[in-house]
Amino acid sequence: MTESQPGAGQGAFADSAYKEAVIDLLGAIAYGELAAFERLAEDAKMAPGIADKIALSAMAASEFGHLLTLNARLTALGADPVLAMEPFRAALDAFHEHSAPSDWYEGLVKVYVGDGLASDFYREVAAYLDPETRALITETLSDSGHSAFVVEKVREAIERDHRLGGRLALWGRRLMGEALIQAQRVAAERDAMTALLAGGVDRPGMDLAAIGRMFTRLTERHTERMAELGLEA
Amino acid sequence: MTESQPGAGQGAFADSAYKEAVIDLLGAIAYGELAAFERLAEDAKMAPGIADKIALSAMAASEFGHLLTLNARLTALGADPVLAMEPFRAALDAFHEHSAPSDWYEGLVKVYVGDGLASDFYREVAAYLDPETRALITETLSDSGHSAFVVEKVREAIERDHRLGGRLALWGRRLMGEALIQAQRVAAERDAMTALLAGGVDRPGMDLAAIGRMFTRLTERHTERMAELGLEA
Repeated sequence: MTESQPGAGQGAFADSAYKEAVIDLLGAIAYGELAAFERLAEDAKMAPGIADKIALSAMAASEFGHLLTLNARLTALGADPVLAMEPFRAALDAFHEHSAPSDWYEGLVKVYVGDGLASDFYREVAAYLDPETRALITETLSDSGHSAFVVEKVREAIERDHRLGGRLALWGRRLMGEALIQAQRVAAERDAMTALLAGGVDRPGMDLAAIGRMFTRLTERHTERMAELGLEA
Repeated sequence: MTESQPGAGQGAFADSAYKEAVIDLLGAIAYGELAAFERLAEDAKMAPGIADKIALSAMAASEFGHLLTLNARLTALGADPVLAMEPFRAALDAFHEHSAPSDWYEGLVKVYVGDGLASDFYREVAAYLDPETRALITETLSDSGHSAFVVEKVREAIERDHRLGGRLALWGRRLMGEALIQAQRVAAERDAMTALLAGGVDRPGMDLAAIGRMFTRLTERHTERMAELGLEA
């Protein structure tokens, strides 16, 4: 039960509770990718020009590619991808519903801050998984160099309009709040995933202090991302 | 000036008017792919379940892949893809605005009938182009087996609800009308593309009779597609 030796062994899937938890986790990430695809394609409509529209649509298409990779893995584990995704639909749809950007820049900040947060969280969890699942998750959450586009566009816009910076800073805080509310909801409903974090007899997990430290790291990274955009967290 | 020997020679791009026309055509197809991506992602929201949503999102992602291929070719021809796409934005946006599906099934019929029509039209034009451009267009417009999904879903739904068949038949007719209106608008505004169809000194083209025969073929294929869906044209 130490957090210094994360990662379960190769035979991890012999433990059916572990397998169930991994299926749960991959289902959550997969639905997240589908929802992200949908939201990015929607945000692309607010693009000021064709080039911007293509840039955001490319991010959407890349999320969809990740979804296919995750679903192939779910199928290989003997799970039905759609059934694995279903339990996370309500929370993720609610997150996007409550954080629908009202303009192009809110959309860009949401991509950067939201995807960054989700990515950090899943990477933290992945540290406690078997190497293969960990590699899959890390690959799926790779950013493919899209963030440079967002950082440049947001910084330029704040430069031109300082009031926008204040509005987007508030928006970033709201995104963080919404994400925490929905994450809490998922944690409360999905025992398998919570058990994954807690560890097992022969698998290291997190105690409460470790979970506290994880949240500190997530918050710090959020603050750093806001700063990269030129915004106060 | 015969339509029996379509296809311009290898040195076709030495003719700057020809090159300009090809850039125009690829720009039109590219913006069509971007608009189709956007519309499919939008329609995916109406999907009755996650599996249907994934199927439609996969079609959207595939259209985006085609866009990247076309843009690479435009760049290789020395054109700016965004500038090449811009002239077709108004007509294609207007088409989608005037034919926004009001439910999941109208969306499916639009994918099938609209993409089929566009694909047939561009293939007809491609027959008059150099082999390389022709191959690119044919590849870009390949359907990737998505139609089987649409045909199955629409046929099932009509089986369950016969009134739906009547409504979707009207919808198909409206789609054809909207497409013709916008195609005419593009033809009237873009001289380069019209010149492409008319041919050149050393390049075969279409005379009015040939254009008439082309429209007959397009209409016949439209009728066949409606029949495949179980709908009257």
